[in-house]
Amino acid sequence: MTQPRWTGVSTCRELDLHAMFGPAFADLAPDIALLTPDAVTDPGAVDFVLSWAPPADAFAPYPNLRGIFSIAAGMDAILACPSRPEGVPVFRVEDPDQAAQMAGFAAFQIVWHHRKMRQHITDQAREVWNRPDGGRSPARVRVGVMGFGFMGRAVARGAVALGYPVATLSRSVQDHPEAGMTHYTDTDRGAFLARTDILINVLPMTPATNGLFDATLFSALPQGAAFVHLGRGAQLDEDALLAALESGHLSGASLDVFAPEPLLPGHAFWSHPGILVTPHTASEAEPPAVVQNVVAHLDALNAAARANSGRRNMP
Amino acid sequence: MTQPRWTGVSTCRELDLHAMFGPAFADLAPDIALLTPDAVTDPGAVDFVLSWAPPADAFAPYPNLRGIFSIAAGMDAILACPSRPEGVPVFRVEDPDQAAQMAGFAAFQIVWHHRKMRQHITDQAREVWNRPDGGRSPARVRVGVMGFGFMGRAVARGAVALGYPVATLSRSVQDHPEAGMTHYTDTDRGAFLARTDILINVLPMTPATNGLFDATLFSALPQGAAFVHLGRGAQLDEDALLAALESGHLSGASLDVFAPEPLLPGHAFWSHPGILVTPHTASEAEPPAVVQNVVAHLDALNAAARANSGRRNMP
Repeated sequence: MTQPRWTGVSTCRELDLHAMFGPAFADLAPDIALLTPDAVTDPGAVDFVLSWAPPADAFAPYPNLRGIFSIAAGMDAILACPSRPEGVPVFRVEDPDQAAQMAGFAAFQIVWHHRKMRQHITDQAREVWNRPDGGRSPARVRVGVMGFGFMGRAVARGAVALGYPVATLSRSVQDHPEAGMTHYTDTDRGAFLARTDILINVLPMTPATNGLFDATLFSALPQGAAFVHLGRGAQLDEDALLAALESGHLSGASLDVFAPEPLLPGHAFWSHPGILVTPHTASEAEPPAVVQNVVAHLDALNAAARANSGRRNMP
Repeated sequence: MTQPRWTGVSTCRELDLHAMFGPAFADLAPDIALLTPDAVTDPGAVDFVLSWAPPADAFAPYPNLRGIFSIAAGMDAILACPSRPEGVPVFRVEDPDQAAQMAGFAAFQIVWHHRKMRQHITDQAREVWNRPDGGRSPARVRVGVMGFGFMGRAVARGAVALGYPVATLSRSVQDHPEAGMTHYTDTDRGAFLARTDILINVLPMTPATNGLFDATLFSALPQGAAFVHLGRGAQLDEDALLAALESGHLSGASLDVFAPEPLLPGHAFWSHPGILVTPHTASEAEPPAVVQNVVAHLDALNAAARANSGRRNMP
């Protein structure tokens, strides 16, 4: 048996990552050995960890890690893990297919709110033919996307393609504005929210976004706005959302993420007529994309190491 | 009072077009007089008719018509009207905003079927957290668009923007293939249908499309395909659709058009769990777009008349 070029460990509190990703590694990267923690005989030979929601001591056994890979776009649980070694880079999956999944799911939610599709479903159940009088044009429904990274960009482009005027909000100035979009930075959050009829959150979970969607934020949206929550459950102040729906300030919400997940039995979100609940299903990187991302990053780490050792040898 | 530059008559069996479009004409084209048939004092001075579902004798009184305008994309009822004078051109509305409405509505229906959104709604009502295992990628869900005119093009482009592989079917060869699309002509209908998981119909109503969506057509789709009906009600063999859903050959359908409309009380479509019924609401040209279209065509008719009279004067 040949020596593997790379050795990795999969570890997660919730998912059997070895069962999910082992076949794709064997198929697409046979020179990478992916092990469960139990199967590791030489912890010093482990090059990388593949994870999502790692146990608290997940990284402790491995002194020579060169990279940590999140199977998902969100890597908040990895970043927060107490045993994570500081100097080791953490990579999120950047999968164009996953971004397309997110764009399609977000487009659905935009049309769901804009075109009042739940009303049509209710009308159908009652055998009521209730044709809306106007209001179909996307040109007057302003979509706002919070988070303009790999996911946010795909979501914003999808909405532009369907004729919606789109604004984005991100920390950094966008040097190259995209067609059909207006770009705001965090200092202009008030102006961004004031012009947003359908707000889509795809922000990552960080200390700065924890509880960000609260009464103050919702009150900055125009009367009748809708909220589409595709980020992380803990970013939402649940009582503030329920109060904004109750008062009629918000017309509806689509929630795909919760804290905790699964959403607890009996939670008010399940039965709220203004809320569409989905089970954290908007997007997911498929195993081949995860493997390709891991391989590309490992190759890049190797190339960087070779360049560094070359520089060290230079006079 | 100045003489109007153009005089038109609005006439429809179902809608009060004068109330719907009169204000937009007064606002945007004050040199056009839009009259109800009752208000016409000089039938010979009527230049155009604005209609949708015209009465059988709608065109009979006007000997000097230069154009007939449909307020909608579909103009089958105008074309079939027995009093329509043969030599007068009929124009449909071509409104980019209406096409964007259609693209968004179709995108919703694509995701509705692909991502099994009704199941999520049902799960929410039962407080069930049922996260699908895979199947989120648009790359393996083949969308097929029947009809590649003004509407079909917008629908196909919207699906491409969301990552779906798209094929189009039309009578004529597409000389300039569009990115992300494969173009079929009617002679290859079998191949087009065999590769289509979600079939979207935006064909106009013509003798050739009457009853086109029948048992033979549905059986040419792959097992589990879905049907999105945005054309005209009479294009659908209703019993064939119900049978294809009953057998499980089709997984679902979205129906926005019916024969007759409104959909009759007690019709099987209302209560079918595999069918999403909407009240002919996918798209609608708004009055300003209709007025702009009418003005542009009238100006073009004038320019053509001037050019013709110029040629007659040439030696």
